[in-house]
Amino acid sequence: MSVQADIISRAAPAPLLRALEARFGARFSQGEALRAAHGRDESWHEAALPDAVVFPHSTEEVADVVRLCGEYNTPLIAFGAGTSLEGHLAAYEGGISLDMSGMSRVLQVNVEDLDVRVEAGITRKTLNEELRDTGLFFPVDPGANATLGGMAATRASGTNAVRYGTMRENVLSLKAVMANGEIVETGGRARKSAAGYDLTHLLVGSEGTLGIITELSLKLYGIPESISAAVCAFDTLDGAVASVIETIQSGLPVARIEILDEVQVRACNAYSGLSLAEKPMLFLEFHGSPRSTAEQAEAFGAIARGHGGGDFDWATQTEDRNRLWEARHNAYYAARALAPGKSGMVTDVCVPISQLARCIAETKADVAASFLTAPLVGHVGDGNFHLIMLIDPDDPKDVSEGRRLHDRMVERALALGGTSTGEHGIGAGKLDFLAKEHGDTLPFMRAVKQALDPKNLLNPGKMVGGF
Amino acid sequence: MSVQADIISRAAPAPLLRALEARFGARFSQGEALRAAHGRDESWHEAALPDAVVFPHSTEEVADVVRLCGEYNTPLIAFGAGTSLEGHLAAYEGGISLDMSGMSRVLQVNVEDLDVRVEAGITRKTLNEELRDTGLFFPVDPGANATLGGMAATRASGTNAVRYGTMRENVLSLKAVMANGEIVETGGRARKSAAGYDLTHLLVGSEGTLGIITELSLKLYGIPESISAAVCAFDTLDGAVASVIETIQSGLPVARIEILDEVQVRACNAYSGLSLAEKPMLFLEFHGSPRSTAEQAEAFGAIARGHGGGDFDWATQTEDRNRLWEARHNAYYAARALAPGKSGMVTDVCVPISQLARCIAETKADVAASFLTAPLVGHVGDGNFHLIMLIDPDDPKDVSEGRRLHDRMVERALALGGTSTGEHGIGAGKLDFLAKEHGDTLPFMRAVKQALDPKNLLNPGKMVGGF
Repeated sequence: MSVQADIISRAAPAPLLRALEARFGARFSQGEALRAAHGRDESWHEAALPDAVVFPHSTEEVADVVRLCGEYNTPLIAFGAGTSLEGHLAAYEGGISLDMSGMSRVLQVNVEDLDVRVEAGITRKTLNEELRDTGLFFPVDPGANATLGGMAATRASGTNAVRYGTMRENVLSLKAVMANGEIVETGGRARKSAAGYDLTHLLVGSEGTLGIITELSLKLYGIPESISAAVCAFDTLDGAVASVIETIQSGLPVARIEILDEVQVRACNAYSGLSLAEKPMLFLEFHGSPRSTAEQAEAFGAIARGHGGGDFDWATQTEDRNRLWEARHNAYYAARALAPGKSGMVTDVCVPISQLARCIAETKADVAASFLTAPLVGHVGDGNFHLIMLIDPDDPKDVSEGRRLHDRMVERALALGGTSTGEHGIGAGKLDFLAKEHGDTLPFMRAVKQALDPKNLLNPGKMVGGF
Repeated sequence: MSVQADIISRAAPAPLLRALEARFGARFSQGEALRAAHGRDESWHEAALPDAVVFPHSTEEVADVVRLCGEYNTPLIAFGAGTSLEGHLAAYEGGISLDMSGMSRVLQVNVEDLDVRVEAGITRKTLNEELRDTGLFFPVDPGANATLGGMAATRASGTNAVRYGTMRENVLSLKAVMANGEIVETGGRARKSAAGYDLTHLLVGSEGTLGIITELSLKLYGIPESISAAVCAFDTLDGAVASVIETIQSGLPVARIEILDEVQVRACNAYSGLSLAEKPMLFLEFHGSPRSTAEQAEAFGAIARGHGGGDFDWATQTEDRNRLWEARHNAYYAARALAPGKSGMVTDVCVPISQLARCIAETKADVAASFLTAPLVGHVGDGNFHLIMLIDPDDPKDVSEGRRLHDRMVERALALGGTSTGEHGIGAGKLDFLAKEHGDTLPFMRAVKQALDPKNLLNPGKMVGGF
């Protein structure tokens, strides 16, 4: 990784560690196991342990840690649920990991305004459980049970972004601690505003490099009167992709439309005890009134039949639906279970929908010609898909072949007018591709980073590199 | 205006003017009338003439002007259609006005991807005329026939943002010339991306202070199969507002839901030759399949009846519908025609929908107790509304009373958790309110401005002040 070339250690000095210990007591730890759990994410990327972990309980405590780290020029890395995938959490220069799990309260539900205020460490599942009685829900769902702060920081999206948008569209405002220790609120509760630069969207997707998100105001949606889910098998992956493209182009408001190739279906059958036909498959969900979901399903059925799609296998019961989506959410773990002991070198790209069929077909051809097993799965309604290459990170042959497939896939997406990452982010893993995709804007991104974090304290080396 | 306290003149020096003249020939002018037309917007704010106007035909030409202005430390103000409302275009320090009207081409329509690439100087009406044969349209509609570059720069929204979002939600990517003359492309054509800081959203709403937008990629939507519009009169403004709130809270996907108070209805009748009942009124539009628009209208009707709404007056024919929306779009001009010779001191605020009834009622009470005429109109589905105070800008009594009502309305919106501007922006007119609303983030906004435009060349004195 190019970032690692210039790493300067900025390990937390003893006086800082002692000051944090005095301030946080049992909520401060230098334990090896805890540091190990905080120096890595769920990906294959190399871990790098922070020097200590702190568990703040309030924005003011976060600000205290930021100020203390600033005094000692020590890096600070915010940690949510540890489910990111591009090496976002590795403490390459050393420093303090700020575990946000102790800040997990729902602060205010505004049913009338369809919004909610939460602390950054709450997970999406807990949030939706706490909302259950209101008839409202928060839709963004990256699969993993991530924290809302982490989801905002990585601009997460997931299975129903095609209908409800990503974190970019669903964060109304953020409370954040900036690198100088100041606490700011980036927006308000009005649905729109033309007042000032859009710092909310500057922080969303900034991967903890511009500020530490401590609270969020989020949009909520009414739980649809009717929800129906189905799977639809296809003879060919091309047919499934063509159905997705036609569905999106026709403006059909599907809530979820997910692709799994035959390898991924096999993995899900084994991991989640399903008995799906091991063919390319779409998982679908329709939201609306009973009449409208029926209309949508009918319209989609006609499209699918035109592309070799079989009959729907309906999941009308809530339990069946949950089982289906649980299996989809566990796709990454299911893929890894195909090759026990191996790691998942996972990557994601996103292309304009008109380029999706070509991008997927060429990627599948690459995989077919490779010795690696690599299921393909994706939020194809957005033009976004993932490849999970199963590699032994200690086997140079595996790593090199994985990298080759990975790089070809990302280059292909860029050549087709797409992006190097639809939702996983840059972290440390895609620095080189950010430079390729946004070489012209990268100096301005760095200028913003330098202006807001002149000491490069916040998650250094990620997103815009070590510069 | 606080901004004017510290103004330093940075008038374009003769060598710069001669260099621009040599470069642009007939597309350069120092003519008094042209300068006068470029030193003001449509508002009551004081004009300040630029030293010259340049009409570029390409991004490279814009970059040349930016570099030349940089050499001479001379300000540069991008000019679209001149329809902004907060003094955005006044050249307080002197400088060059860059009129983008010569860059008005549709560069590429991607029907399959539902997006379009345009030059920044195209107006929204021209864009939609050019799209007509594709079956697609661009929805953001601020009323005025603004340019897309100007709409992006001011984060414009308008009548159907409640359904389709504002410019924030509908710009996929921008080409811009930065203050150092470098040309950047902020995004790509993928529907989502997690690659890098979100410079697209940083430029959207930056009011020409961080970069000059020269091209845009925009989302498009299929023209709905069925469009129906209606007006619905109410006995009280409260009843109309309550109907809006219930409509939004119920999740009904209205495409437009606009309020006009009885003063504004009277103005529109006179100006646009309508014969509407001079009562508080909602203008509505429903988009969808014929069945779905009928369902929506039925659901809204039930809500309205519960709040003293009368029968719908339908405009099912395209011509009737256009006539109705033309009248709504001309509301500002209609209001001004109520008091010929007076100016419109217009302001807009946006509040959480739960606070809308209170915010409007208290504002109306202020107006009732004032000697000024001030129609109220708004995009109330978003919680956004406008007050148009008719004042003689040369009469200190009018100005002072207008300011009083204005300031009370904005303070009220802020106190209710809203924003000082939903869509008109900060410009020069709301600098003090930006400081009130975002005092905590303003230093960081200024740090971003300083990082990206260290010489303060781009529209100086606007948005973040003269600092």
